[in-house]
Amino acid sequence: MPTPPPSDRVRLRRAHERGTYDAETLHPVLDATPLCSVGYVIDGQPYVTPTMHWREGDHLYWHGSSASRMLRAADSAQVCVTVSLLDGFVMARSGMHHSINYRSAMMLGTAHKITGAAEIEARLKIFVDGMFPGRWDMLRPANAQEIKATTLMTMPLDEASTKIRTGPPNDDEEDYELPIWAGVIPVRTQILPPEPDPRNLDGLEPPAHIVNFRL
Amino acid sequence: MPTPPPSDRVRLRRAHERGTYDAETLHPVLDATPLCSVGYVIDGQPYVTPTMHWREGDHLYWHGSSASRMLRAADSAQVCVTVSLLDGFVMARSGMHHSINYRSAMMLGTAHKITGAAEIEARLKIFVDGMFPGRWDMLRPANAQEIKATTLMTMPLDEASTKIRTGPPNDDEEDYELPIWAGVIPVRTQILPPEPDPRNLDGLEPPAHIVNFRL
Repeated sequence: MPTPPPSDRVRLRRAHERGTYDAETLHPVLDATPLCSVGYVIDGQPYVTPTMHWREGDHLYWHGSSASRMLRAADSAQVCVTVSLLDGFVMARSGMHHSINYRSAMMLGTAHKITGAAEIEARLKIFVDGMFPGRWDMLRPANAQEIKATTLMTMPLDEASTKIRTGPPNDDEEDYELPIWAGVIPVRTQILPPEPDPRNLDGLEPPAHIVNFRL
Repeated sequence: MPTPPPSDRVRLRRAHERGTYDAETLHPVLDATPLCSVGYVIDGQPYVTPTMHWREGDHLYWHGSSASRMLRAADSAQVCVTVSLLDGFVMARSGMHHSINYRSAMMLGTAHKITGAAEIEARLKIFVDGMFPGRWDMLRPANAQEIKATTLMTMPLDEASTKIRTGPPNDDEEDYELPIWAGVIPVRTQILPPEPDPRNLDGLEPPAHIVNFRL
């Protein structure tokens, strides 16, 4: 049995056959990119701020400067966080059936600020090491001022939907007879070779978490 | 003289030295990806929906099903559209100075629905041909029902900010002496060879706008 929508607010209306509400589908989409968009409201006006996120279990985290307008507006407030990955252009035989292949997730909930220097530092280590295993302990340690300047937000992943499209176009049946090239132009995120900082000390080699980095 | 912020709402607070407010910087960021995030408000709750956009002059456009909740909520309403492109991971000598290289734009304004079948079809042709030159006229023509099922939205680009980060990390001066590998892991969007629809007619070759497609 598929997981039912956790609320009417996240129930998918359009192309709902592409949508799911279970953690098994949601988590890999969140883990596939560090980039999300956080939606929040100030004086009735919606704002969307791109930022980096990470996941621990069934909670999402993001961070930023303690002076950030976005983080102050999101604290103890309703937010919507969206992640989207473009996987390809779907070229159909009519304009109507052109589409994209994608993975996307929408999460609603109340965001909360994490307090306590030790708690904040522990979360940041998980963020950095989650992408670059072992890096945190190789760095110059964080000092109290830096931790104080960092605001960490979290929200539970209990009101979310995931939408995924894959595969070739779905054309009208009669259009398959037309001599029009259809198919998919796949798109992916490519990681290029690392570029050392010109100010690196002589003879420093990139560690494994740099050389082997994948998204 | 740099363009001043068009409003206090889009004035950049954080890392404002990376921000600009001029069309010459904004337009290439919007044109570099078809994927945006549209933020809107329903009953005080923010929502962020990923969708495709395109630009004509100083207006942004996006479209969707006429039954879409997002498009209905955005009509004649205040929206925030954000575009973000990840260009690289900036690996510093402290956790604090880790960052990403990116291009992002935030646009505020009132969205309006475009009416009139001819107007809608003309805009859709510009959307398709803007990415895939000449494709619209190769397709099975759109019919009245399809145009009716399509809602097109537009907003002016007169209240926008663009933020761009490039280059190596900016570490604390004393940290440059540490034997820690720093630098950038560049990221780019890669277009892979087209995958023909298994139901293409025999002998159909992909047209130039497929073979030469670049973002």
